[in-house]
Amino acid sequence: MPSSKNKSALQEKKSDSHSNLSAISAERIKSLRREKKDINELIQGVLKGNKTALSQAITLIESRSKRHTDDIKTVISSCLPHANKSLRIGITGVPGVGKSTFIEQLGLRLTHEGHKVAVLAVDPSSSVSRGSILGDKTRMEKLVQEPNAFIRPTASSESLGGVARKTRESILLCEAAGFDILLVETVGVGQSETTVHSMTDFFLLLKLAGAGDELQGIKRGIIEMADAIIINKSDGENIKPAKRAKVEFTNALHMYPAKQNGWSPKVKLASALNNVGIEKVWTMISKYATIVKSNGFFENKRAYQNQFWLTQTIEDSLKREFYQNETIKAEFPEVLKKIQSQQMSPFEAADYLLKKAKL
Amino acid sequence: MPSSKNKSALQEKKSDSHSNLSAISAERIKSLRREKKDINELIQGVLKGNKTALSQAITLIESRSKRHTDDIKTVISSCLPHANKSLRIGITGVPGVGKSTFIEQLGLRLTHEGHKVAVLAVDPSSSVSRGSILGDKTRMEKLVQEPNAFIRPTASSESLGGVARKTRESILLCEAAGFDILLVETVGVGQSETTVHSMTDFFLLLKLAGAGDELQGIKRGIIEMADAIIINKSDGENIKPAKRAKVEFTNALHMYPAKQNGWSPKVKLASALNNVGIEKVWTMISKYATIVKSNGFFENKRAYQNQFWLTQTIEDSLKREFYQNETIKAEFPEVLKKIQSQQMSPFEAADYLLKKAKL
Repeated sequence: MPSSKNKSALQEKKSDSHSNLSAISAERIKSLRREKKDINELIQGVLKGNKTALSQAITLIESRSKRHTDDIKTVISSCLPHANKSLRIGITGVPGVGKSTFIEQLGLRLTHEGHKVAVLAVDPSSSVSRGSILGDKTRMEKLVQEPNAFIRPTASSESLGGVARKTRESILLCEAAGFDILLVETVGVGQSETTVHSMTDFFLLLKLAGAGDELQGIKRGIIEMADAIIINKSDGENIKPAKRAKVEFTNALHMYPAKQNGWSPKVKLASALNNVGIEKVWTMISKYATIVKSNGFFENKRAYQNQFWLTQTIEDSLKREFYQNETIKAEFPEVLKKIQSQQMSPFEAADYLLKKAKL
Repeated sequence: MPSSKNKSALQEKKSDSHSNLSAISAERIKSLRREKKDINELIQGVLKGNKTALSQAITLIESRSKRHTDDIKTVISSCLPHANKSLRIGITGVPGVGKSTFIEQLGLRLTHEGHKVAVLAVDPSSSVSRGSILGDKTRMEKLVQEPNAFIRPTASSESLGGVARKTRESILLCEAAGFDILLVETVGVGQSETTVHSMTDFFLLLKLAGAGDELQGIKRGIIEMADAIIINKSDGENIKPAKRAKVEFTNALHMYPAKQNGWSPKVKLASALNNVGIEKVWTMISKYATIVKSNGFFENKRAYQNQFWLTQTIEDSLKREFYQNETIKAEFPEVLKKIQSQQMSPFEAADYLLKKAKL
């Protein structure tokens, strides 16, 4: 229940009964106790792998209400020691590349093998595009019926920073609930690929052959992040161009500096719709996991990611505070004009604004 | 003269003469007047294109002494309206690729055509590597004798942020002194390529064919930044592999998304030592300049870079202040340990430290 609603209910009661304050306090204490019990039940539910509890817990951490701050902390710190045991796979690609079908097939393959699979999404634009990503659950209608699958559509209209935090915390909850494989999907909006890359162990880029796709749609830097490129819809007339694209991408990937983890990114063909190539993709990911777990890179990368999220959160907060300062908001456009008309150097302007923010 | 030296001289005088304070004050006022006159002379010298004045002005802005803060501001704000009229070319490549020879040949080519050419370097490591970059002036012994060439070795042991600021301000001074082509060199240390990329109009990556160079040395993301890749040392037995590398890089570059400026990055062969290919490189850069000046991208990019340096300087300062806070310094390693042992989530830890910094 959102706090504003709760608050107004309390206020109504207050004005109705003409302030029986002690009764209200008693009610509040009871409610707090009930909540505390509820939270503990919720946590137990998550730890037992109950999907309804997991769903409620994610809804809780997605809450922006201050009233939930303590509960959120309790849930996360209780789940944290049970987290971190999954393999986290990031999946990106332009709309139309067949991400949902691919994720469903991979998910089915994994649940049939006995894995518990959770599917999450990072999509800061979903409030605008209305369910462009995972929103339409029917797109994964087989996977959603699997008892060992958990699909969580995203419905946030927040900043990417906010979405990232909540996705990352949702990952922890899913892991605490025993999901051992996490598929984190993103549409390529803004910096969302970088975000998903920073919270996963393996990063998959889905592409289509031909159609000028090499030259558009995929943002700069994404190819370098990929641990594998899957050329999807490699079927029918597409097979020939897909094979050509595979050669081209393989050559292109060789131009990049080697990754630190001893893994050279692979290019694979797949037709998710026909369930072709999915098996090979999973074999590849398993091989990767074996390599990086044995050479220590897996642990190192997670430690690095933790530190990244720590500093990222700190620095985002420092910036937000600075740029939302009323003086800075008022002065910034003026200062920018002075820079562009060569009355001020960017450095001089920075010194000036930094001083202003401290007044 | 460094301020610490100056200060100790004053202190000696004071203890020697047993405090004739008013005499010292008079001396100080005279010295200030002299300095003010000196600064104006210095600025006039720079604006007249006097290389000695330019050199002294750069030494001044490189000073870390607080005593020079006002003078530096005066110099920069006086030069700023006369700056921004050059073409700024960034040049990077691993050590041994032949950057100095390439820059000398390109510089000679340009000065002979009547251009005034300034060569600067970004090398935050120079205090360690001792003159790895431009330090050994004899490496450009022909160019250094050209009246229309100005070569400034870097000698800073500062942070990259500090070096970047000073290089960017040096660019302004060189431009105010009438240098119309700036060659900004960097060895690929840390983030220095990104830094140079952010202060130049055209970014050249020098490479060698074969030798496994494709797979090492060049950091991730650098290839995407390049407006052109020059395969240097394309001579003798190297010609064949160089031609092969040219094809490979051209294909690789086609895999990238198109740049916003309407320019598709080129791959060229050169042998700087034999002065082969330099002419073509310059023709290419001239063509680029014509295109981006006519489609507005040149101005847009500079405006973007100005804003980048403004926000970058602000954010670096905010971060520095946070991480140098004594409480944070003491708590950070502890908090990091708690994150790695899953006692705390990175977000919780960030909230905790942010609160601590405000106490």
